[in-house]
Amino acid sequence: MRPDTELPSARDKLLFTPGPLTTSLSVKQAMLHDAGSWHFEFNAKVKAIRAQLLSLAGLSPDPGWEAVLLQGSGTFGVEAVFATCISPKGKVCVLANGAYGERMVLMLQHLKIDHVVLRTPENSPTDPAALDKALAADKFITHVAAVHCETTTGILNPINEVGDVVKRHLRSYIVDAMSSFGAIPIDFGRAGIDYLISSANKCIEGVPGFSFVICRRDALMACDGFARSLSLNLLDQLRGFEKNGQFRYTPPTHSILAFEQALKELEMEGGVAARGARYQRNHEVLVAGMKELSFRVYLDPKVQSCIITSFYYPSDPKFSYQDFYRRLGDKGFIIYPGKISQADTFRIGSVGRIFEADMRALLAAIGETLGEMGIKLNATILRCS
Amino acid sequence: MRPDTELPSARDKLLFTPGPLTTSLSVKQAMLHDAGSWHFEFNAKVKAIRAQLLSLAGLSPDPGWEAVLLQGSGTFGVEAVFATCISPKGKVCVLANGAYGERMVLMLQHLKIDHVVLRTPENSPTDPAALDKALAADKFITHVAAVHCETTTGILNPINEVGDVVKRHLRSYIVDAMSSFGAIPIDFGRAGIDYLISSANKCIEGVPGFSFVICRRDALMACDGFARSLSLNLLDQLRGFEKNGQFRYTPPTHSILAFEQALKELEMEGGVAARGARYQRNHEVLVAGMKELSFRVYLDPKVQSCIITSFYYPSDPKFSYQDFYRRLGDKGFIIYPGKISQADTFRIGSVGRIFEADMRALLAAIGETLGEMGIKLNATILRCS
Repeated sequence: MRPDTELPSARDKLLFTPGPLTTSLSVKQAMLHDAGSWHFEFNAKVKAIRAQLLSLAGLSPDPGWEAVLLQGSGTFGVEAVFATCISPKGKVCVLANGAYGERMVLMLQHLKIDHVVLRTPENSPTDPAALDKALAADKFITHVAAVHCETTTGILNPINEVGDVVKRHLRSYIVDAMSSFGAIPIDFGRAGIDYLISSANKCIEGVPGFSFVICRRDALMACDGFARSLSLNLLDQLRGFEKNGQFRYTPPTHSILAFEQALKELEMEGGVAARGARYQRNHEVLVAGMKELSFRVYLDPKVQSCIITSFYYPSDPKFSYQDFYRRLGDKGFIIYPGKISQADTFRIGSVGRIFEADMRALLAAIGETLGEMGIKLNATILRCS
Repeated sequence: MRPDTELPSARDKLLFTPGPLTTSLSVKQAMLHDAGSWHFEFNAKVKAIRAQLLSLAGLSPDPGWEAVLLQGSGTFGVEAVFATCISPKGKVCVLANGAYGERMVLMLQHLKIDHVVLRTPENSPTDPAALDKALAADKFITHVAAVHCETTTGILNPINEVGDVVKRHLRSYIVDAMSSFGAIPIDFGRAGIDYLISSANKCIEGVPGFSFVICRRDALMACDGFARSLSLNLLDQLRGFEKNGQFRYTPPTHSILAFEQALKELEMEGGVAARGARYQRNHEVLVAGMKELSFRVYLDPKVQSCIITSFYYPSDPKFSYQDFYRRLGDKGFIIYPGKISQADTFRIGSVGRIFEADMRALLAAIGETLGEMGIKLNATILRCS
């Protein structure tokens, strides 16, 4: 249950999105301070955060790993890995089944990095067997890039099985775990991950402002001279931290203070397992309630993550997503538009500082909204894709 | 005077730096809310902020100008201009007299953009006559990049006179006004500026998290296809705002809410003129007081900005900057190390939510600290460079 002390923030609309998410009041209150970004007290916090991220990843006290924070959104972190870590002769194989895989392709186009894309349909996980063939056929591929939870649909991709193939072919492995890290357990050794990217405002429940990359130290160190951007130069960023504990360029100090508090609250909740369990419960309550309202889930439950869920539009011609969205917004609930090219869907996130009671309140608001729109409950005929 | 209602934030150490700066409590309190980055209410705020920035620049309601916000620090904004706006055959002439000019050179090296550097000593303004010769001699130079206030020293460069030369030679003009915009008046038309970059956490007194670029719309629109980075693609960023009012990628929502409040407070203070006057007064009080303590200012007053001031170390062998800095920090005052290669200096900023009384409190603390360190007041013999 949401503690009573958090009530003041309850005046904000609750965010059922893939992020930025609803955060605790105490996380936001941590931002009521101006820290000197060069001051040793702030640098000590940054150092502790970097260590805690490795610990959260199960990689502590292994000195072979680094956590590097980078200003900007998660996209900046993913692009920084490509911009810094692919040699001029490198080639990346992107596994894509949604907008975030396609965004990687756009990055590689901008950076003029050679690449190939292995696509699966938006409702199908990435295919390790297809990757196996592609890597066997193309010796020039140096890196494989995959998205763990593709929030375009909410699908969870098999990063362990993909990792098995990548390692068998001795390539490097980049995983975008933006929306999963901190809630879905990731075994770096098992998956054979070299670089993993996530962001402050996802499952760790901080506020936006920076991303972070967890990577093998020797892999990053071997990338000297490759960087195609100064701001996105991840190796220089690490060297900056190691030189004097500082960000090279102005960090989002307030976001970092919030993140420090968010990490404490994640630990208090019981770590990754407990947080994942809360999100899973949120997701289950959501799906059961939406089914009762006759909504249909886009994905097969076997590949559905607990992070975000895509629902088909009802087929009732009285349904307008814009109207539905606005009415829910007026009631204090922000849902998310669909991003799927092949089907008319909207999305509802189960993550952030939201609880089972919030999911039930959302479901009640959805029921009420359908009533207002004249869409009959429990008898909605749904449009198939 | 600092209003009494701000006292709770007075527990934080005051920042006498070039940023992140001390901000008002109300600016920080604006961050006690989680905004949906796709929600129309948030988009309306972003739209209003973009318009207010143009107004602050004296460019409203001219439809020929755009203000584009970009995630990350100010450095990301400067690099975004280079990464987006220089054609593959373009060549940039950088006017450098400090670390921020040199940082531009590093960006161009990373981006593999042809460039030439015109350097002046750190205590001398950029030289329009030298630029005139360089542009006359090199027809391949397409863009000139200058730093308005070079916070390496605190020197103010002559952006109008440089602009005259740039325009006479029909080149494009990029100005890094990171630490000056919002406090030092800038006449875009007079200076002939095409692109100006500044950031949220400088003279507008917001918190860090994003930079912004104010530019001629037709100039930016002509850059289609040049972008060397997806995250730093400024033209795509503008198109995103124009398409649906949204950032392409997760914005630092809390920093933006803080910035909205900071813009209100800038207006309440009386705009750029009033803010600049406060900073000027802070600077004058600082310099007078430091001179009384026998410190010597690094720059000639004719080229000194009111933003930040470099002071020589005292020559007394008992002076250690680290000790001095720590003792001031313990008293609640954060000053800034020097960045000058040719002289031993430290820096004190006059910007942010600090007032004359704060400058006097700092001066008292400096006097006390020198006493603790056994450095005799009013008789310090200063080391010359």
